[in-house]
Amino acid sequence: MTLTTMPRPATRTRDTATVTMKAFVYRGPGKKALEERPKPEITAATDAIVKIVKTTICGTDLHILKGDVPTCQPGRILGHEGVGIIDKIGPAVTAFKPGDHVLISCVSACGKCVYCRKQMYSHCTTGGWILGNSIDGTQAEFVRTPYADTSLYPIPEGADEEALVMLSDILPTGFECGVLNGKVQPGSTVAIVGSGPVGLAALLTAQFFSPAEIIMIDLDDNRLEVARRFGATTSINSADGKAVETVLKMTGERGVDTVIEAVGIPATFELCEKIVAPGGTIANVGVHGQKVALHLERLWDRNISITTRLVDTVTIPMLFRTVGSHRIDPKLLITHRFKLDHILDAYETFGNAAKTKALKVIIEA
Amino acid sequence: MTLTTMPRPATRTRDTATVTMKAFVYRGPGKKALEERPKPEITAATDAIVKIVKTTICGTDLHILKGDVPTCQPGRILGHEGVGIIDKIGPAVTAFKPGDHVLISCVSACGKCVYCRKQMYSHCTTGGWILGNSIDGTQAEFVRTPYADTSLYPIPEGADEEALVMLSDILPTGFECGVLNGKVQPGSTVAIVGSGPVGLAALLTAQFFSPAEIIMIDLDDNRLEVARRFGATTSINSADGKAVETVLKMTGERGVDTVIEAVGIPATFELCEKIVAPGGTIANVGVHGQKVALHLERLWDRNISITTRLVDTVTIPMLFRTVGSHRIDPKLLITHRFKLDHILDAYETFGNAAKTKALKVIIEA
Amino acid sequence: MTLTTMPRPATRTRDTATVTMKAFVYRGPGKKALEERPKPEITAATDAIVKIVKTTICGTDLHILKGDVPTCQPGRILGHEGVGIIDKIGPAVTAFKPGDHVLISCVSACGKCVYCRKQMYSHCTTGGWILGNSIDGTQAEFVRTPYADTSLYPIPEGADEEALVMLSDILPTGFECGVLNGKVQPGSTVAIVGSGPVGLAALLTAQFFSPAEIIMIDLDDNRLEVARRFGATTSINSADGKAVETVLKMTGERGVDTVIEAVGIPATFELCEKIVAPGGTIANVGVHGQKVALHLERLWDRNISITTRLVDTVTIPMLFRTVGSHRIDPKLLITHRFKLDHILDAYETFGNAAKTKALKVIIEA
Amino acid sequence: MTLTTMPRPATRTRDTATVTMKAFVYRGPGKKALEERPKPEITAATDAIVKIVKTTICGTDLHILKGDVPTCQPGRILGHEGVGIIDKIGPAVTAFKPGDHVLISCVSACGKCVYCRKQMYSHCTTGGWILGNSIDGTQAEFVRTPYADTSLYPIPEGADEEALVMLSDILPTGFECGVLNGKVQPGSTVAIVGSGPVGLAALLTAQFFSPAEIIMIDLDDNRLEVARRFGATTSINSADGKAVETVLKMTGERGVDTVIEAVGIPATFELCEKIVAPGGTIANVGVHGQKVALHLERLWDRNISITTRLVDTVTIPMLFRTVGSHRIDPKLLITHRFKLDHILDAYETFGNAAKTKALKVIIEA
Repeated sequence: MTLTTMPRPATRTRDTATVTMKAFVYRGPGKKALEERPKPEITAATDAIVKIVKTTICGTDLHILKGDVPTCQPGRILGHEGVGIIDKIGPAVTAFKPGDHVLISCVSACGKCVYCRKQMYSHCTTGGWILGNSIDGTQAEFVRTPYADTSLYPIPEGADEEALVMLSDILPTGFECGVLNGKVQPGSTVAIVGSGPVGLAALLTAQFFSPAEIIMIDLDDNRLEVARRFGATTSINSADGKAVETVLKMTGERGVDTVIEAVGIPATFELCEKIVAPGGTIANVGVHGQKVALHLERLWDRNISITTRLVDTVTIPMLFRTVGSHRIDPKLLITHRFKLDHILDAYETFGNAAKTKALKVIIEA
Repeated sequence: MTLTTMPRPATRTRDTATVTMKAFVYRGPGKKALEERPKPEITAATDAIVKIVKTTICGTDLHILKGDVPTCQPGRILGHEGVGIIDKIGPAVTAFKPGDHVLISCVSACGKCVYCRKQMYSHCTTGGWILGNSIDGTQAEFVRTPYADTSLYPIPEGADEEALVMLSDILPTGFECGVLNGKVQPGSTVAIVGSGPVGLAALLTAQFFSPAEIIMIDLDDNRLEVARRFGATTSINSADGKAVETVLKMTGERGVDTVIEAVGIPATFELCEKIVAPGGTIANVGVHGQKVALHLERLWDRNISITTRLVDTVTIPMLFRTVGSHRIDPKLLITHRFKLDHILDAYETFGNAAKTKALKVIIEA
Repeated sequence: MTLTTMPRPATRTRDTATVTMKAFVYRGPGKKALEERPKPEITAATDAIVKIVKTTICGTDLHILKGDVPTCQPGRILGHEGVGIIDKIGPAVTAFKPGDHVLISCVSACGKCVYCRKQMYSHCTTGGWILGNSIDGTQAEFVRTPYADTSLYPIPEGADEEALVMLSDILPTGFECGVLNGKVQPGSTVAIVGSGPVGLAALLTAQFFSPAEIIMIDLDDNRLEVARRFGATTSINSADGKAVETVLKMTGERGVDTVIEAVGIPATFELCEKIVAPGGTIANVGVHGQKVALHLERLWDRNISITTRLVDTVTIPMLFRTVGSHRIDPKLLITHRFKLDHILDAYETFGNAAKTKALKVIIEA
Repeated sequence: MTLTTMPRPATRTRDTATVTMKAFVYRGPGKKALEERPKPEITAATDAIVKIVKTTICGTDLHILKGDVPTCQPGRILGHEGVGIIDKIGPAVTAFKPGDHVLISCVSACGKCVYCRKQMYSHCTTGGWILGNSIDGTQAEFVRTPYADTSLYPIPEGADEEALVMLSDILPTGFECGVLNGKVQPGSTVAIVGSGPVGLAALLTAQFFSPAEIIMIDLDDNRLEVARRFGATTSINSADGKAVETVLKMTGERGVDTVIEAVGIPATFELCEKIVAPGGTIANVGVHGQKVALHLERLWDRNISITTRLVDTVTIPMLFRTVGSHRIDPKLLITHRFKLDHILDAYETFGNAAKTKALKVIIEA
């Protein structure tokens, strides 16, 4: 991987009149750079320009850097998470004004199309996950956010903005794709396969529904220890190949009510198939790059559900209220902090999580 | 009120061969007695005889004693809650055997009728709430429980049986009639009108769903203080007539998502009508003795729901698991303990809750 | 009631350049007029001007004319239903262009506020039912529709536009407030109290779910005969005071699963209370002008739900598809047709439905 | 396949005192026989002996005859569907008495276990699908039905009993596993892959919910013609490999909301994966003998659900009411009738459906 940092003048004053800005740019498979780029402009009446205060790095950004996301072309500013301050608004924006502090959803929602009308913002016909993908993103000093009225969320005075960065993507992903799709219930049993940031986000939000058991399964003892601190009632290191046996033994051979897949490979999905109870649900959160084997010869009569979902971020307002009332502490997920000038270090840290024990890293713009 | 205690021989040995037993009996409005009664016998193949270990007194028992419950005739042994040990089983009972420790549901369910088939056990065509009402109840040394297989629940070894007495009626009532019917959600706002035992049971179980706010409203400062200890985020003494104003101010004039009525008089129901938000729910738990005014001229266009429910106890297994996993501590509700010999004192204490600060009182048989 | 028709020049050419137009105007309690009014202009970027092709009269318009709707002040052009052709659009409108044929929802939805985000458009903080109420409506040659992108619906080429007028209000009202809130199910029993247009709309849309019985209750034999033609399996004229007895006898004393109140007075609401089965739902559709007596002393333990709702019109797209696939024929509701010039006759006909047998009257602009 | 008919005396009188009876017996892979067998006896207090009036053959019976169902051992009387008359009851049976006409569910439900308590009768810990599988079945003159009170359903006087045979298995299977799991809605689009009896049962019951489109996909033109008669709005013969293309074209490249898999092989399941719309559901009904490829690399972000289910027959009462109210005509599925003496012919006819055009065949005992 070739890391390139573009030279930038040392003495520039940074304010909203600045015409260029620092931005983290994907330069093709294995190539990335912190560059000087033109500050974004309003291009549609529903746009806002947001001055980024804090952003973060997502596992998906690592996929992009490997060249695995064809919709994201070289030259793109990455990043689809963050909090900031409204800098400018288009003429059709009514919910915000310059100076407002906002949370940026990773999903842009027009609010009008057939999918947005049923709150499936992830499939907005002109939006969805486009930030830091098919349009420039948030790992920069400024970002243009389309459909501002329905894609930004006001941050109340006094809120802990750093904590709220976790509401752009990771917490709604764990909650919507894992916990809600998985129908976690009071007294139910839950297994989460994968104790990375998104699995841990599912772990934190699963506790909203007071399940009796949350079993965390991973190969990394450090992450399992984190999971126990975050509320897992049991942790299983699956390296010895006995995870299925252990879960079935724990549950009287019945399996668990909700299995959340938070890895995205065939082996972990098949593990889920083996531990789901009759009547249970496998909620897939993982991003898969290849097909998996679905053992319908065993599952056709087991009354199970399997769900998939790209996060809609429709629960951001609900999550805001749970943070405000201290039902959850999103900062638990934050392990490291960097200035935007050192974002390449941030990527190094985040990309070597096994060694650095990084979960989410905050980038201050 | 005339309290009568029947004389009983001092030297009897109490065991399962005993042909008489102590029992608390309703003797007509204002009259009650601890009497010597024949030990119950199996009368249907699906019956069990349970030796009571611990029971408790319900607000409904006080209603019966006043003569307010016409289905309950003088001579009836009261009580519809408790834990015990199986003494005998009828020939059709397959789920239990003598010596098993069981929880007794306040609702007897045949498991076969149209209502039982949709889990509406409260309306079982030959069961429902009959224990301590139309048949003899649990405030005695032994009780005959109809439909044992579907009305008793096995107590796992090592469980705290005293805590489980709360699962016979009070916790499922608060949870099913209040919390589930009221659709409490993560981040939502809840108001509970009435901080007596059933309101507090709703308060404890509402927290399974992590609402942002739980506002407790009552006239008794002691009970409000208890509510705060049990997790209420706000408490309002409505004595000054400003409860509606306070709640609306707290919620930006919107009202609350879920209002749980746990008193049962017109004034408190109308209070609920005034504080429910558009799109919200009023979940009635209170036992009403007269009609209330429903202000449809204000509510017809507010998109609200009003629900009523006699507890089905269908959530007992779920509640068992939440207790087992320490998501809830039912013993918080227990304030006093008495021997069955002193059940008249127990009634005095429970009947004067304003003075004694009694919530639930345990009777040891 | 004083009917006033304003004089208008005979030779005017009517086209989109016209600066005045004909409009039906509320002139204070008991007063109405067909007047010449300025053609509306775009006042917000999200507005559209729609040239009305067909509109209709709602029972609510009669309430306004009596002076019962305080939000509607004299001088207001009435009407909140209709189909038309886009004449002009504001700069922020992206879903429509001039010439497009559209259906107008009776509810204006900004698509952005907390209520719109949960599809409760009726409570849109800046919209809701404002057309022909707090802003000028559709009983005119042109209407300004706010939030065009989220309040108008495209009419596909070749559709029967007259039939679609029924989708502006009456069909979604019967369907959302009555049928969906009432949880009509295959094989269930339904009673609809009130066989006026909205009751009949509930009757037509209830059949989407294949209930076993639909019992129609009214005082008007003609309307009951219409109901039988529209699919009611039983009709009951409640004039003899025996409706409750008849329904209970028909249902083995159990009552009906879904009761839809489509009148809006205390007597009919109390009838609903008497015929709802344990576990059933009373779905209120009627517009109530006073409180009703809710007999909680009988209902507190019946496990029922009562719902209220102002139509959200969120089901318009679904209803479009049911019309397109001939699952429902909305034209069954249309009994009379008038030109806009004769709208005063239309009001006479609609206002004397008992005599004229009018259900819905079409006004051609 | 070896067909064997056991000799039987010509002059026997058949009545309830008979100690032997005719029965259709599985004799090992490829072997079957109509034999004389002892009449069944009550073996548990909850049993009933039912004199079979009419039964039928299921596709599963063909699987058993091939040796594909290991739980079904040689010597077993097959059959899990039928109507009959109660001959004897065990001492714990309270809902029926000799002489009652009953429908037999294909699933035996104890009504007590954890699965029965949540209406998941298919997974009853001591029941489930055992009739004609692990215990003797209904293709005989008499059958012993376990858990009679919760596994038999009373047939009202005057009902068409032949039609009701379709409620033992085929209609609830299509309805529960296909239509309910598939969340068919008014105005929605449905595709059913497989136009055999179970696919057609899904087609008939899907119409309870008034979808806009029901697309039937099969390789057999005759069955597709039947499907059109039964209400399919479109039929597609997938032999040319263009079914996916056709469905996507019909739906504007979006796909269908509900896809019902009613075949049970990898190719048809993968077809379902290709035509499900974002937000849609694949409801598996087919009995699968091997794993399928689940293309999560395409589906992980499509917000879909996949469901599996062994029929619970929990909707039998609902289906009874839809038949009684003529919302559905189950007899449409019946193409042939045989006497029990000719059951081998019935199997020949049913087993060669492509040639005989058989759907369901009635066997009169």
